[in-house]
This record gives sequence, C-alpha cells and structure tokens, in this order.
Amino acid sequence: MEIKAYLNKHRSVIEAYLEKVIAQPVGDFAPHIEAMRYSLFVGGKRVRPILCIAGAEAVSGGKCNLEKILPIAGAMECIHTYSLIHDDLPAMDDDDLRRGKPTNHTIYGEAAAILAGDGLLTNAFELLSNESSSPDPTVKLRVIQLIAQAAGSFGMVGGQSLDMIYEGKQVAYETLKTIHKSKTGALITASVVSGGLAAGATNEQEQALTNYGNNIGLAFQIIDDLLDVVSTTEELGKPVGSDEEADKVTYPSLFGIDQSKKMAKEAVDNALDSLTIFDHHAEPLRGIATYIIERKY
Amino acid sequence: MEIKAYLNKHRSVIEAYLEKVIAQPVGDFAPHIEAMRYSLFVGGKRVRPILCIAGAEAVSGGKCNLEKILPIAGAMECIHTYSLIHDDLPAMDDDDLRRGKPTNHTIYGEAAAILAGDGLLTNAFELLSNESSSPDPTVKLRVIQLIAQAAGSFGMVGGQSLDMIYEGKQVAYETLKTIHKSKTGALITASVVSGGLAAGATNEQEQALTNYGNNIGLAFQIIDDLLDVVSTTEELGKPVGSDEEADKVTYPSLFGIDQSKKMAKEAVDNALDSLTIFDHHAEPLRGIATYIIERKY
Repeated sequence: MEIKAYLNKHRSVIEAYLEKVIAQPVGDFAPHIEAMRYSLFVGGKRVRPILCIAGAEAVSGGKCNLEKILPIAGAMECIHTYSLIHDDLPAMDDDDLRRGKPTNHTIYGEAAAILAGDGLLTNAFELLSNESSSPDPTVKLRVIQLIAQAAGSFGMVGGQSLDMIYEGKQVAYETLKTIHKSKTGALITASVVSGGLAAGATNEQEQALTNYGNNIGLAFQIIDDLLDVVSTTEELGKPVGSDEEADKVTYPSLFGIDQSKKMAKEAVDNALDSLTIFDHHAEPLRGIATYIIERKY
Repeated sequence: MEIKAYLNKHRSVIEAYLEKVIAQPVGDFAPHIEAMRYSLFVGGKRVRPILCIAGAEAVSGGKCNLEKILPIAGAMECIHTYSLIHDDLPAMDDDDLRRGKPTNHTIYGEAAAILAGDGLLTNAFELLSNESSSPDPTVKLRVIQLIAQAAGSFGMVGGQSLDMIYEGKQVAYETLKTIHKSKTGALITASVVSGGLAAGATNEQEQALTNYGNNIGLAFQIIDDLLDVVSTTEELGKPVGSDEEADKVTYPSLFGIDQSKKMAKEAVDNALDSLTIFDHHAEPLRGIATYIIERKY
C-alpha cells in the first residue's frame, strides 16, 4: 500500500475511534468536553497513533488486532493534543494559530484551555487502563509505565520546561539535542514501542523499534525546523519564521539548510537500518520514515 | 491509637515515601523537578494518601502490606498537589498563598507552574503502574482506571471547569453539589476506594468505602466553607473571607452557619454508618470522619 493511502486510511480509523470513545459535549461538563474535543478534532496528521499501529503491525506479522491497539493509539493522540494546548498558552509559547486554526485558549480562554489539557492527559490514562483493550494486564502496565515516563518530567514535560528556560538564549548543540529528545522524541518513540509491546514484542524487537523511534524523532525535528525557514504560512498552517522571530536555536540556525537536510536524511537511513529484523509487515514504518523527509521544504 | 497520632505517623510515612520516589532536582531537568518538589513538600495534611492507607487497613484486617499501598497513596498526593498548583494559577483562582506559603507560580512563574502540575499528574500514573508495587495486575489496572476517572473530565478537572464557569454567579444547590462532588469529592472517594481495592476489597466493601468517601467528601467541603467564614488567616494559612470576596456560593451562604454545621455532622454520621461491615481495623477511617468536624471553626 502506498504510504499516503496508509496514512489517510489509518487517520480515519483513529479519528473514528476517538469520536467514539471521547465523551460527547452534553450534560454538566459540556463546556469542558467541548474545549477538549475542539483541539482533538481540529485536525492533525495523527502521526503518533499511526506509529503505534504500525509498530504493532511490524511485530505481529500482519496478525495485528486493531481493537487491542486503538486505546493505546488514541491515548497517544490525547497526550499529544494536551501538550499542544498547554504549549500554545500565553504563559508558554503564546501562539494564536495551530494547524491553521485558532488555538484553544483564544477560543475558550486560558482557564478552560489549561483544564482541557489536564482532561486530555487524564483521559489518556483512562483509555490505557480500559478493560476493553485486551493485551495481557502485565504488558498493559508496562505500556502505561513507558508512556508515563515518555510524557513526564524526564520526557515531554521536562523538555518543554527546558524549551521555556532556554527561550531566546543561545544553547549548545548538546542542550538542543536534550530538549528535542525529551520534548518531542520521547513521545514519538513511546508511540511506536508501545504498539510493539502490546503486540508482544521481544526484547530485540523492542530495541529495534526504540532505535527507529529515536531516529525518526530526530528527523522529524530537523524537518520541522527546516519547514519553519523555507515553507509558506499557507503550507505550514502557522506563521513561518516564528522560530527565527523567537530567536530559537534550530538545526538550520546551527548547521545551515544544506547540512540540516543531510542530517535529516542520515537519521531516516538509521531508522530504516533499525528495521532490518522485520519482514514486509514493517513496510508502513519504512514508508513513514521515508515520508518524513519528503515533506515539502 | 489516637487519630491525631495516626495522622501524624502516616503523614511522615507518606512524606518519606514521596521523598524517596520523586526525583531529586539534579541534572538537566533540575528547575522543573524543583518546582514540582516545592509544592509537593511545602506542607499539607496528606489526607488523600492517608485515606488510601486507612481504606486498605479496613479491608485487609490489619494485614495491610504498606509497600503495596504506598505507590497508590503517593499518586493520590501527586494528583492533589497538581490540582492545587493549576487551581492557584492567575488564569484560575489567582491565589498568591497556599498553606501559608507562596503559591507555585508566584515563585517559579506561570509556565513552570503549569508544567510542574503536568509533571506531577503524569508522575502519578508512573507510580500507579510501577512494577515494584505488587497487587494483582488486573486490580492495579482497575485502580488506575478508577483514579483516572475520579481525576478527569467527569471528576476533578470537570469540577474545576464548572467552578470557573460559575465563579461570581448565583448557582442552584444542585449545581453546587455537582461542583463539589466532582471537584473534591471524587478524588477523596477514589483515595479510600483505591486503597481498599488494592487490599482485595469485595464488592460490598467497595460499596461501603464509596459511601464513606462520598460522605466525608461532603463533610470536608462544608467544613472548608465554614472555615473560610469563621477562621483566622493564621489558622487557615490563606486569607479568610476569600470565598465571600470572590462571591462564591458556599454552604454557609446558602444555609447559614448553624444549618451548615448540622449538615456536616449528618454527613459524618452517614460515613460512620457505612463502616458497620468492618471490624476495629476501620478505626482509622472512623477517626478521620470524626476528626473532620472537630477541625477548628
């Protein structure tokens, strides 16, 4: 299957699942639910949940039971969405646009946006512990642990805290790597690994998926930095040049555009090398890795 | 054991446990960890984790393995602390003092405070899924589910969203009850029930603990409202009369002080009635219920 068709198909599957399991905005808590749903359904490529499913497919050799994986995939999207809502807040990056649409707090106000994020994060763990998903309970606990660590103080939340601390300051390359690895890399890796674990990954397979995740996370970040420099506002869905304006240290600002492109290519090659232990059922993972550097820049 | 001695002893046990399992503020993420630790260790009665332990004791008939319960108890305190940090934010209640000390954002700034809360919430689920606690994995998943629901959009977070929406507005008694039940009651009930579940509670015991939790949650809220009216700033650790100033609907404002006291007493009596199926190992739960209305007001 061509990767774009795969991505489209699975994006629909994930959105249909989320539509089903996230509460409807009725009853006492309707305004809060509405704010959560706005950001969850405003768009997005659903990269993390798709990686989760693709990781499970690679491990299960085509016998992947989607019903078992969707709660994990859905949880990853809830966590990702919560992080975007909080990152966009006036106290953080103060962004008015996200995916070409008004950010959560510009519509619902700051308090509701903070709570929408809190609700989505909590909801993720409700999905992960849900009885209706059926992997072995011990595996499920390992998946929860892995995701909590990736999303927490030594992962995504810690990375965002560093990003805030170093905003507008010159940072060393090592620090930049730590920020990216924790802020965005950890959750990307956890997505693909958690899918693999739920499908019964061996230690070797888990390690391969971890290497894959770390490398595509890196590629993803470099391409994001590049897109901010060379894309158009329309293509990007947010103002271009916002990194430069915020005086952020990025791959292009440190290494230049050509070298950054080369580094992204290397990371994708490393990701592909990690997958040699898998058969053709890892084609979606391979396709996603390749697709990352084919994004318009 | 006298209840005050019980509370003091277990507060120390919980604080020692949290001190051990929460990361030290060293390394790349030190500033973020420091902000989390500040609010976690600035004080507090540790009511929720103590309820968790007392619930386990009631069920296990004195054979409670504290090592099994402490990760759950610690998680409840992390969730409670995160909720206080976010509730105090300028966009929410905008409080400068909490427990007589500066609130998190007044020391670390808004962005760091939001992230400290996010980190503590995520950390709670890391503790809950930790392998080192040893209840049956299926029970552990049920506990995670219960706590996620109590802390989430139909529990604590949803309650805070209603509190924001109705701030300064006249609300009906039914709405007030919904706000309290979700904002504070749900987590209190989840504390005592999760401890009971981890100790192997039967359905009947679970129901008894749920009734107990709901009733002491109610008593707790009424007393909190009363303290805000009749206490002194020194006793309360925050400015008195802040509810009235914020034009909040409270039990005293709806029913007057005497009737509110009577309602609190009734709730405590109902809580005690729920415990008749337990033997003397439920004495701590009984003591806590009675202690609530003996708080100075």
